[in-house]
Amino acid sequence: MSELSLAAIVQALGGELYADSDLRINGLASLEAATPSQLSFVSNPRYQQQLRHSQAACVIVSPQLKDEALLRGACIVSEQPYLYFAKVTQLWRKTLLANASSDDSKRPLIHPSAVIEPGASVHPTARVGALCVIERGAQIGAMTELKSRVTVGENCVVGDRCLLHSGVVIGADGFGFAPDGDRWEKMEQLGSVRIGDDVEIGANSCVDRGALQDTVIEDGVKLDNLIQVGHNVRIGKNTAIAGCVGIAGSATIGAQCTIGGGAIVLGHLHIADHVHISAATVVSKSVSKPGHYTGFFPLDDNASWERNAVTLKQLHRLRDRIKQLELEVKK
Amino acid sequence: MSELSLAAIVQALGGELYADSDLRINGLASLEAATPSQLSFVSNPRYQQQLRHSQAACVIVSPQLKDEALLRGACIVSEQPYLYFAKVTQLWRKTLLANASSDDSKRPLIHPSAVIEPGASVHPTARVGALCVIERGAQIGAMTELKSRVTVGENCVVGDRCLLHSGVVIGADGFGFAPDGDRWEKMEQLGSVRIGDDVEIGANSCVDRGALQDTVIEDGVKLDNLIQVGHNVRIGKNTAIAGCVGIAGSATIGAQCTIGGGAIVLGHLHIADHVHISAATVVSKSVSKPGHYTGFFPLDDNASWERNAVTLKQLHRLRDRIKQLELEVKK
Amino acid sequence: MSELSLAAIVQALGGELYADSDLRINGLASLEAATPSQLSFVSNPRYQQQLRHSQAACVIVSPQLKDEALLRGACIVSEQPYLYFAKVTQLWRKTLLANASSDDSKRPLIHPSAVIEPGASVHPTARVGALCVIERGAQIGAMTELKSRVTVGENCVVGDRCLLHSGVVIGADGFGFAPDGDRWEKMEQLGSVRIGDDVEIGANSCVDRGALQDTVIEDGVKLDNLIQVGHNVRIGKNTAIAGCVGIAGSATIGAQCTIGGGAIVLGHLHIADHVHISAATVVSKSVSKPGHYTGFFPLDDNASWERNAVTLKQLHRLRDRIKQLELEVKK
Repeated sequence: MSELSLAAIVQALGGELYADSDLRINGLASLEAATPSQLSFVSNPRYQQQLRHSQAACVIVSPQLKDEALLRGACIVSEQPYLYFAKVTQLWRKTLLANASSDDSKRPLIHPSAVIEPGASVHPTARVGALCVIERGAQIGAMTELKSRVTVGENCVVGDRCLLHSGVVIGADGFGFAPDGDRWEKMEQLGSVRIGDDVEIGANSCVDRGALQDTVIEDGVKLDNLIQVGHNVRIGKNTAIAGCVGIAGSATIGAQCTIGGGAIVLGHLHIADHVHISAATVVSKSVSKPGHYTGFFPLDDNASWERNAVTLKQLHRLRDRIKQLELEVKK
Repeated sequence: MSELSLAAIVQALGGELYADSDLRINGLASLEAATPSQLSFVSNPRYQQQLRHSQAACVIVSPQLKDEALLRGACIVSEQPYLYFAKVTQLWRKTLLANASSDDSKRPLIHPSAVIEPGASVHPTARVGALCVIERGAQIGAMTELKSRVTVGENCVVGDRCLLHSGVVIGADGFGFAPDGDRWEKMEQLGSVRIGDDVEIGANSCVDRGALQDTVIEDGVKLDNLIQVGHNVRIGKNTAIAGCVGIAGSATIGAQCTIGGGAIVLGHLHIADHVHISAATVVSKSVSKPGHYTGFFPLDDNASWERNAVTLKQLHRLRDRIKQLELEVKK
Repeated sequence: MSELSLAAIVQALGGELYADSDLRINGLASLEAATPSQLSFVSNPRYQQQLRHSQAACVIVSPQLKDEALLRGACIVSEQPYLYFAKVTQLWRKTLLANASSDDSKRPLIHPSAVIEPGASVHPTARVGALCVIERGAQIGAMTELKSRVTVGENCVVGDRCLLHSGVVIGADGFGFAPDGDRWEKMEQLGSVRIGDDVEIGANSCVDRGALQDTVIEDGVKLDNLIQVGHNVRIGKNTAIAGCVGIAGSATIGAQCTIGGGAIVLGHLHIADHVHISAATVVSKSVSKPGHYTGFFPLDDNASWERNAVTLKQLHRLRDRIKQLELEVKK
């Protein structure tokens, strides 16, 4: 069983340790689930109650909760317990990998089943999983990892330290057709995709190549699973987008934005930096002011929804009737 | 051409046969489409009219429709005609497989192109399709079938008699990051995925591994295509979820629920047993009472929608104007 | 660097050339982005201003803009500049392919890593990319191209000149189960998928096989990425559907329709020809009249949305209060 001493954690990540430094943990868990040999954290002062009753071997807390935590037992104090815990998960994963298989280091970086076309360029430190396809002219940066069954299309560029999950498709054709009477004539998609550094893209997500210019995902962007990014889209630095979001062609999204799951962003519009879009919301116009935006129909029992939905289709007329009433009452 | 005698069907599945037991059918079809050599069914007494005019060789009916059916010709009487027909589809498929290729039985259970990492465990009766990836520590249960191009990630467990369709990704990382100033620090996803018995998962659907604990899909769950299941989600027994649904992290969904296509379930909430969510509905709060819930904007012609949508943004103020009118009229 | 003379373009595609016919371009670009050696187009008379300031070597314009274009420099006049430009992108792509790799013609049409089961039929002119799976009985038509990692299931038929992007799954089981007490009994999906000619299907999209009859995609249909097409659906000629759309089982969609991204079409309904559905709209009833239909909640700042969403749940009662007021005011 893998173990890590609290001393080793604090040595690697900083923070003040209030515990027997020989104490070793054998896992990470939430406050409620933690066993007496696991490390946990509390990021929100509201969870004082759970803190008090946690069985955890040690808890990562903010300075404000230090006294409370000490009453319970061992703790590590950090200004940002959640961030600290994230780094602990990374340390713990490395420990697991080191212990789990001594032969892990012998694994080839490029799985023998991957198809890498001549003219593709894969950095010697990059990892390419089973059954990936890297087409000619594509570039994969340093320390980047492609899990299994990822396609990176012709001439597409993936930066350093990226993580692309299984089933991702980078550089399929954007959706572009010119009407020719009843039928559609294909607009060949001549651009490519440029993905910056430290980008993560979730399973089965797609980023289409640009029509003429490139589709661009800037540094630090995080995309969840089953996301569609249309051609010529640009997503700014560190923006995080949850699962099942669709972004139509030529939309530009600023930096430091968040977009909730299942949202739809229409094409050819602009979202400013620091905009937060709720889940399941449709962005049908540009959003120029930072802030939090929402738009979805509230859940209701089906019968109530039906009544209200029917009435909603008369809403404009209801407004006119209110206006009329106001006129009559004034008289 | 494959054939099956009605006698063989009744022998295998029960039911009362009112027909020449030597009668053989060569296919299954709906009431309207059935030819005089095909078997059909009627599950709803409302379809009496179609029953009367059906060309089918034989029709599966409930006891209430028996007399009606006999006027037309051959029938099989069963308490649950739709369920009976489902079992006939299974019997028919076996017949087709048996006839189609005598060499089918010689096919290896594990396709030679599949990548099965050392340390993965595949039950000797499981079937693994072309170009699948089964990572180390993963377990595939008895009689389970993975169609082509399925990934089952490290340490993920799939139970017995499951069916995973092409492109499914089990065990990609959940979407977890801690903010570190402007950028995101990855929260390593240390849990795995546990899938029970008799689970079906549709094409290109994704089930993410848990952050600390496991993501759990209980026995008998049916997931359609292009569904996203976030980390730490739990889906209860026999719940059925239609295509394009997104379920955010740490949501728990009860047993015997149904969720319509394109619905979005937000994170960290709870849906009770026996809850039915309509298609395209957003579940933004926990639902503690069994029932049928809905919430989507009703379709309208575009011009009407525009007028009503604009007015909807003033709805709260309209309510205030109604209140005001009520006060004035009372005076 | 690839080059193409304007004379060669006009010779291939028609149009009137007003320029030195020896003039050669080395790329295509939008009006704003075009360098002095690139070809551009203007499809909308509103872009006169951009036309005037474009650096492009030559611009494709309609007859109405010819004089305006000549003031600036070289132009090609065509009745339909956008369609003309689409054809130029195709010509340009051929030029790039011809120049890029003299050994492209030596590439095998069927990638050696593709898995083609015995009994599948692939036309000698079809192209099958890396790591595709074509199951027995499937048929791939002339000049059709499957990019990497496409699955075409048993007995499914893909017509001529189709383009299927990476990760597409044709012929997974439709979602069909009969309730058996608490559990579900599988309805075997015995139909297949028939895809016409000139169909394009985007990355990671899925078309399920029919339950009894076939799922049908007619000629000229264009599907974007991450689209779900349920069993027994029929999509009419030349209909174009944007990304993330879900179409439930047994829906029939007419010819010459367009459906915006993220829309949901419920099952067992019919959409007529020439219907245009906006993005993120739920089609919950049949649409029998051609036209433009919409239904999504308008975006708002979160606080306003909350107030309006709460009020929306009382809308039916608000209508009753308006009725009441009208009665009282009349008195």
